Amino acid sequence: MFAKNFPICRSIVTKQFVNLSVKKPVVKSHLSIPFPLFLQNRHYAKPVSQDKDKLIIFDTTLRDGEQSPGVTFTSDEKLEIARHLSNLGIDVIEAGFPIASQGDFDAVARIAREVGPLMHGREKIGKPMRIAGLARATKADIKRCYEAVSLAPLHRIHTFLATSDIHLNYKLKIDRNECIKRASSAVAYAKSLCDDVEFSSEDSGRSDRDFLCQVLGKVIEAGATTLNIPDTVGYTSPEDYGELIKYLIENTPGSHKVIWSTHCHNDLGLATANTLSGIVNGARQVEMTINGIGERAGNTSLEEVVMNIHTHPSSYPVYHTINTQLIYRTSTLVSSLSGMVVQPNKAIVGANAFLHESGIHQDGVLKNKQTYEIIRPEDVGVFNVNLVLGKLSGRNAFRSRLEQLGYYDMSEDDFNKAFDRFKAIADAKKRVTDHDLLALISEQVSSGSVHRFDLQTIQVVSGTRDMVTATVKIIDSALNRELIGAAVGQNGPIMAVFGAIQQLVQRKIRLLDYEVRAVSEGMDALGKVVVKITEDVDSSSVEADSNPQEHVIDRAVKPVIEQSGETKLSKSRYHGHGTDVDIVMASARAYVNAINRLFESEVNEESRRSSLKERLANI
Amino acid sequence: MFAKNFPICRSIVTKQFVNLSVKKPVVKSHLSIPFPLFLQNRHYAKPVSQDKDKLIIFDTTLRDGEQSPGVTFTSDEKLEIARHLSNLGIDVIEAGFPIASQGDFDAVARIAREVGPLMHGREKIGKPMRIAGLARATKADIKRCYEAVSLAPLHRIHTFLATSDIHLNYKLKIDRNECIKRASSAVAYAKSLCDDVEFSSEDSGRSDRDFLCQVLGKVIEAGATTLNIPDTVGYTSPEDYGELIKYLIENTPGSHKVIWSTHCHNDLGLATANTLSGIVNGARQVEMTINGIGERAGNTSLEEVVMNIHTHPSSYPVYHTINTQLIYRTSTLVSSLSGMVVQPNKAIVGANAFLHESGIHQDGVLKNKQTYEIIRPEDVGVFNVNLVLGKLSGRNAFRSRLEQLGYYDMSEDDFNKAFDRFKAIADAKKRVTDHDLLALISEQVSSGSVHRFDLQTIQVVSGTRDMVTATVKIIDSALNRELIGAAVGQNGPIMAVFGAIQQLVQRKIRLLDYEVRAVSEGMDALGKVVVKITEDVDSSSVEADSNPQEHVIDRAVKPVIEQSGETKLSKSRYHGHGTDVDIVMASARAYVNAINRLFESEVNEESRRSSLKERLANI
Repeated sequence: MFAKNFPICRSIVTKQFVNLSVKKPVVKSHLSIPFPLFLQNRHYAKPVSQDKDKLIIFDTTLRDGEQSPGVTFTSDEKLEIARHLSNLGIDVIEAGFPIASQGDFDAVARIAREVGPLMHGREKIGKPMRIAGLARATKADIKRCYEAVSLAPLHRIHTFLATSDIHLNYKLKIDRNECIKRASSAVAYAKSLCDDVEFSSEDSGRSDRDFLCQVLGKVIEAGATTLNIPDTVGYTSPEDYGELIKYLIENTPGSHKVIWSTHCHNDLGLATANTLSGIVNGARQVEMTINGIGERAGNTSLEEVVMNIHTHPSSYPVYHTINTQLIYRTSTLVSSLSGMVVQPNKAIVGANAFLHESGIHQDGVLKNKQTYEIIRPEDVGVFNVNLVLGKLSGRNAFRSRLEQLGYYDMSEDDFNKAFDRFKAIADAKKRVTDHDLLALISEQVSSGSVHRFDLQTIQVVSGTRDMVTATVKIIDSALNRELIGAAVGQNGPIMAVFGAIQQLVQRKIRLLDYEVRAVSEGMDALGKVVVKITEDVDSSSVEADSNPQEHVIDRAVKPVIEQSGETKLSKSRYHGHGTDVDIVMASARAYVNAINRLFESEVNEESRRSSLKERLANI
Repeated sequence: MFAKNFPICRSIVTKQFVNLSVKKPVVKSHLSIPFPLFLQNRHYAKPVSQDKDKLIIFDTTLRDGEQSPGVTFTSDEKLEIARHLSNLGIDVIEAGFPIASQGDFDAVARIAREVGPLMHGREKIGKPMRIAGLARATKADIKRCYEAVSLAPLHRIHTFLATSDIHLNYKLKIDRNECIKRASSAVAYAKSLCDDVEFSSEDSGRSDRDFLCQVLGKVIEAGATTLNIPDTVGYTSPEDYGELIKYLIENTPGSHKVIWSTHCHNDLGLATANTLSGIVNGARQVEMTINGIGERAGNTSLEEVVMNIHTHPSSYPVYHTINTQLIYRTSTLVSSLSGMVVQPNKAIVGANAFLHESGIHQDGVLKNKQTYEIIRPEDVGVFNVNLVLGKLSGRNAFRSRLEQLGYYDMSEDDFNKAFDRFKAIADAKKRVTDHDLLALISEQVSSGSVHRFDLQTIQVVSGTRDMVTATVKIIDSALNRELIGAAVGQNGPIMAVFGAIQQLVQRKIRLLDYEVRAVSEGMDALGKVVVKITEDVDSSSVEADSNPQEHVIDRAVKPVIEQSGETKLSKSRYHGHGTDVDIVMASARAYVNAINRLFESEVNEESRRSSLKERLANI
């Protein structure tokens, strides 16, 4: 329907929006353009391209995004996300922090090897995605990082050091001279291994500007090709952040030799605005995550920045190569695998983003879509919920639908597993929608890794609330044994099932969070359950009579003091997810999935301790 | 702990941040201030105040927020939210759209009468909250609005008309002259009833600027006291929006006589930045909602704008009277009553907003909190999860805790109900936390209205998946009868219970969404269930073979064409919520709650049809 009226909008991956000026463009006239101006804006774009106008989209969902509390991706999940990001048209992904543990190293190396060469969906871009790894400013970190990322055809070492006085004094306990020395020698070493070197000045937003110029100048001399300016604590305003980028570009010796990059956090709800302000002031790389997941209130939402540029091409003098029609699908995948729910009123990818509730709105939309729509749902790939598959659909129909959803290269084994699961669901459910398929596949990806426990069957017998009996059968692959156990629960069938599983795995597990969402509409909808757990070391730590002056943050991650007296800094919360038409069964799957992550993490823990305690970074 | 070190931070409701300039202040120097700069900023503030620097906080959670798809507040819920907003220090609330239906009128009138005079928590402000109502630019709308709001000591009529050519041509089908005529005569009529009149130019962002100045000038002549400039479709950037506000203030005849107001939507993730840009450019009223709920991707988040001003007082030359320590609690209440989940990575009020996951972050926070925290959790009232009450807690302890949570004026009857429910929960749950209490009370508020069905007991007998039998007893207050029924479900116990309830109420209900969240930690945590339903008029409307070119928006609200040939524009989706330690029971409560809203809405429907079809507004 739309295609006929506005064919100009159908091309997504093109280099059409160009403006040579780095300064903020004074284009206000569109406010007086009558109709439909978000399309008319396209006409301002000049059909030429220069490399200085290419905006490099750097995705850090797998590194900064994984630092979201409770988020732990398995290696298979990371690979799946990386594959979708490559397909989406991302220029650079930060695949992880290789020195953190053997598990982290292996995941980065695997992505470099398996996703690094992929060209599917990148035909117009003409090259594969670049794989970056993070490293602190030490030789050991950088070496380890290089070993992992160099398995990809295009790769990058990303090293960082704090430059703010507060971090130098209180955290690193070094002076400014030592900071310059460490930064430039780290970059020089990285450059000796790899042409493409990025340096981040951690907590740039609170660093002294002239000192920052000094450090960054030395780092350029040492061979850095990209300079990233993180607003680590999400403190700055768009004006301040943009002005900082501008100041640094104007005052850093040799600044024209490098690409300047933004990295914003969302603590004050301004990450998108700050990133856009960075672009207007000369940044040509933007670091972001899908759905804006990340530490605390998260990172910049990739989809918001991309769709701002898409909607206002004349305001942002850059072009990008993202295939916006794959945004919604990628958002769904990341939400599903991370267990981080997207709120309905989230811009671009929220469930309500394209719903018009009010009478007048509906009336307007019926009369003329442009009255209220500034982005068409199909531009970001919000797909329809029409019947796609049913009980009688065959293997070919199933395979072709999966391919349309981005699963174009499944192994025969994975495909067969997915098809069996689909058939089982189609028995319980009349219509199997795209949402259902994505939920099924993402669960299969999550449980696809090597894992210790495999849920077989559950049986719940419930009479009144006080008398629910759950019987659970699981297979323990480490002991190669079938385990069957039962538990009586007082808090309904789901908690009874959790109790039985807890007995079987012989651990005291604390449930931190429990969440169910229907994947689609109807009483036969699939329920997707996300649980968050931790090992219950000491349940008496919640005190009744603590000092009321001292506020304890709700659900805080508390660093554990180990026997050696050192603070244990590794992750201690694990999420798991499961999907089924029966929510009790879905809950059981999710609980076992989380427990498998906990056990897997313990296996990794040994390698982690022998290498270093600080697992994650903070830029 | 903190209080000792930084006593300067403890005062929240003060008029301390003043800067007489309306222009964007050039304060960049704080980037080089070492430590702890978000506190040092306070020192820039001058301890004087002028009315031109007062920022009027206008909350539209009950009007624009209720336009979120699926959100329908009962009259009791609206009252409860209004009461909390008064306590929070809001200057003006938009309580609803009185002419829309008798139900809407009654709710606005009740808020005006019961919340309008409240002074609790407003001692420093010195006056109660102003109650506004919305009205289209017609005499009938304005008269009806005045009848409702005039019951409050301080009140306002808020009338609106579209000014963009696209709206004038396609929706209203009038020319520019007619637009000016209608706007100024509407304002003149409102002024004849009420001193305080606000006018909104709908879709200002896409209106011709000079025409806008012309309309607004006439409206000022007619007596408007506040001019609101909505960015209806969330289209503009911070630069454009700020520049628009500045242009209008500079070019509208008589602009100095009125307060200029912002109203931004979040379609591109920029509502907070746009609102702040409006303030910097001279706006002295900001329209927002709690949690940013609203049409599509929502409205501006009140908490984000307020905490930006709190964190950067020197950047925004205004003061406000919000008691920020009540933000988290108000956010929880609105999320609970609206059924709109807040994502964990939401700025300020998300569950992760103050969590530090990464090792280095934790290390930094342990050494010095300021390394990563720019807002202290206690500044927004993120309370602790320590044991507050247990099985043995008495009535006094319970009452005092409720008072601390903002429920200071419960009726004896409501208090007794709440205490009974608390005792029942405390039997099942060792520790009853603040989260639990808020969930309980909010459920009590929701089910407190007159409602048709009352859930008594449920019993579920489940063996294997195919054989779950649910038996449900409810009381139908309209028929004054006890109804008992059973259903066999194939999709687990919860869907079996829904099936049984559906039989009893004798309606074909379609489940649109189903969601469960644990209220706190542990296996004995309360589960809070939110369901969204619609009446299943014709389930065959989902077509298998629709045109693949035509994308149907997932879960869209489809306007229904009535027999008369006219489009029915009323709400058709209802949410309900329920809380219990047993998720099956919580689900049953939620389902009955939603069905009660559906039946109540049908009762209102008659009055609505006789008055007008367009129920909601679009600014």
